[in-house]
Amino acid sequence: MLEVLAGIGRNGRTGGYQRDAWSPPELELREWFRQEADARGMDRHEDRNGNLWAWWGDPDRKPGVVTGSHLDSVREGGAFDGPLGVVSAFHAVDALRASGFTPSRPLGIVSFSDEEGARFGVPCVGSRLLTGILPPERARGLTGDDGVTLAEVMRAQGRDPAALGRDRETLARVSVFVELHIEQGRALTAPVGVAAAIWPHGRWRFDFHGTADHAGTTALADRNDPTLRYAQAVLSAREVAEKLGVVATFGKVLIQPNNANAIPSLVSAWLDARGADEDAVRRLVAELSEGQEVVCESWTPEVAFPAALRDRVAAIAGDPAPILPTGAGHDAGILASAGIPAAMLFVRNPTGVSHSPAEFAEPGDCAAGVTALAAVLADLCGEAA
Amino acid sequence: MLEVLAGIGRNGRTGGYQRDAWSPPELELREWFRQEADARGMDRHEDRNGNLWAWWGDPDRKPGVVTGSHLDSVREGGAFDGPLGVVSAFHAVDALRASGFTPSRPLGIVSFSDEEGARFGVPCVGSRLLTGILPPERARGLTGDDGVTLAEVMRAQGRDPAALGRDRETLARVSVFVELHIEQGRALTAPVGVAAAIWPHGRWRFDFHGTADHAGTTALADRNDPTLRYAQAVLSAREVAEKLGVVATFGKVLIQPNNANAIPSLVSAWLDARGADEDAVRRLVAELSEGQEVVCESWTPEVAFPAALRDRVAAIAGDPAPILPTGAGHDAGILASAGIPAAMLFVRNPTGVSHSPAEFAEPGDCAAGVTALAAVLADLCGEAA
Repeated sequence: MLEVLAGIGRNGRTGGYQRDAWSPPELELREWFRQEADARGMDRHEDRNGNLWAWWGDPDRKPGVVTGSHLDSVREGGAFDGPLGVVSAFHAVDALRASGFTPSRPLGIVSFSDEEGARFGVPCVGSRLLTGILPPERARGLTGDDGVTLAEVMRAQGRDPAALGRDRETLARVSVFVELHIEQGRALTAPVGVAAAIWPHGRWRFDFHGTADHAGTTALADRNDPTLRYAQAVLSAREVAEKLGVVATFGKVLIQPNNANAIPSLVSAWLDARGADEDAVRRLVAELSEGQEVVCESWTPEVAFPAALRDRVAAIAGDPAPILPTGAGHDAGILASAGIPAAMLFVRNPTGVSHSPAEFAEPGDCAAGVTALAAVLADLCGEAA
Repeated sequence: MLEVLAGIGRNGRTGGYQRDAWSPPELELREWFRQEADARGMDRHEDRNGNLWAWWGDPDRKPGVVTGSHLDSVREGGAFDGPLGVVSAFHAVDALRASGFTPSRPLGIVSFSDEEGARFGVPCVGSRLLTGILPPERARGLTGDDGVTLAEVMRAQGRDPAALGRDRETLARVSVFVELHIEQGRALTAPVGVAAAIWPHGRWRFDFHGTADHAGTTALADRNDPTLRYAQAVLSAREVAEKLGVVATFGKVLIQPNNANAIPSLVSAWLDARGADEDAVRRLVAELSEGQEVVCESWTPEVAFPAALRDRVAAIAGDPAPILPTGAGHDAGILASAGIPAAMLFVRNPTGVSHSPAEFAEPGDCAAGVTALAAVLADLCGEAA
């Protein structure tokens, strides 16, 4: 089924995907989700925060077991990060039905909106809004690099940005959430693993202000060139991250005005910092922020998935499946931090490469992921309410 | 007259101008040029390379004296860089006519196309094509950040890119060229000065390749992060420039894919380097290029304006007007390097700021510029052929 999606939002030259939230390719993926739900006779709806749901059974009678992931991508991203979890969810439903399984609880599939935050800077917008972690007024004002806000984009797509925000009704339908995702490092050597915890992680925007001037006629001594302070921050981030045992990346930068022959007036650079040790991440950010103009755009403390659920999932998914931490953020982490029992299955990534056109999982491992997911769902749905 | 242009291509928020070659605001400025020529009964035409000409007298009977500059801007540029020279040219014609002056040679006004190179990377495209310094096949293939080539852009505007290239007929009409321009440093303390020489200068694109990967899950030791090598180059450029007594700027950068949560696959950064000493500029570039993938996008050796013409212009423009070198490139430099007698008048810039919304010249100094330009043109046009 992943092959059906292979052409959507793909850059033919690089092989990378551009599936920004609410962009034409992402809208095409939403349409695909609706068709897959309809083809299975599942009740579907989009909640007020743009998340898509499909139900086997009635979640208003009894809270259900939900699986799924997201369909958007980072820019120049890979084919697996997100869609693998949604596609595997539909495959798992097919497998359960083919086996004659009848769930004693409703079974839901979800595709969360804007998990990557490629367009508006903040990741997991859909699940953060749903759980109330992201205030709706802040979400409405999130602005893309093109100057257009999330509210404007949603309105243009016929959605009502005034309706954004914590959605108790939709949350009440979810008794437990299991997200399947491609692993994004090299740590998983079995076909399928289970998440222990998500590292604390965040994004910070550094604004280095300078004085715009002519690159040829301005003496070095007269310059206020912000690229120098930015370059120093990039190098310091690496050095401090090494010292503190965390990871730090300046992967995005916007320069004003970005002329070859002009000293910039502003360099805005985004720091992504994560690590197993929350204190160390905070110390890194504090050290780099000293004397700088810095805005925290998102911060997620460590999320440890509930141990009993984790161990139960690991026992069913493997023999048992290995349990490993991750440096990547996920909607499952958002739900877990909001108190919803949540677990994650990882599918092996032979190279560990992710957020890249080179991202890859073996078909056999993907199939093992579906089998494991179906078994976990059967276990969770088979339990008496 | 500069006030009439004040609103064209201006960013209301920053006050900076965006007048990329062949963009809507630049096309509006071209229309303004045609109207000004028509209003004065001057014969006008656009040459095959997109440069605009207006003539008082017939340059096919006798080569003429030409003045002018350019109407395009850098991105987020100022109001004076370029337009001041074109506006002053029309004012000077008005002043000469009002005084009853009858030129014994034709007098021309030119607006050269794409002087800044903001869109396609190479500056002085119009004058370089006219003189044959820029090969037309290279010009046709120049590509903007949006992936569109100069040939495509010109064709979309009804121009014929196949006709680009050295234009002997148009050049034969020019016996001498005088460009008036705002000074771009703080060196000029009189209202009007004269150019001695243009520093050797060039642009080089550095491509730092890396391996796209996830910013959270990739261990520091496993990374091939090109931002580190780029940041090192930015700091080295400053250090080496100081050591060698030249100026160096990385004012433009494009990052692929530019996601906050991904290690980039490519950082392309443009180095602008200039200095009084050509050897020193070359040494700087050689030192920074070591082990890097570097493409020279343009290189202009030192242009010394002809001494006799320079001194004659200085004697008329002042008492005499001070003579000073410049680190900025100009169409007058391109014409001079192609063997056409050329000179430049500079109008004082009290802050020295240029390529910035803050660029400014006092109205009194601009008027002094027009007076000096009219006197210079009268002298050059009054001379027997």
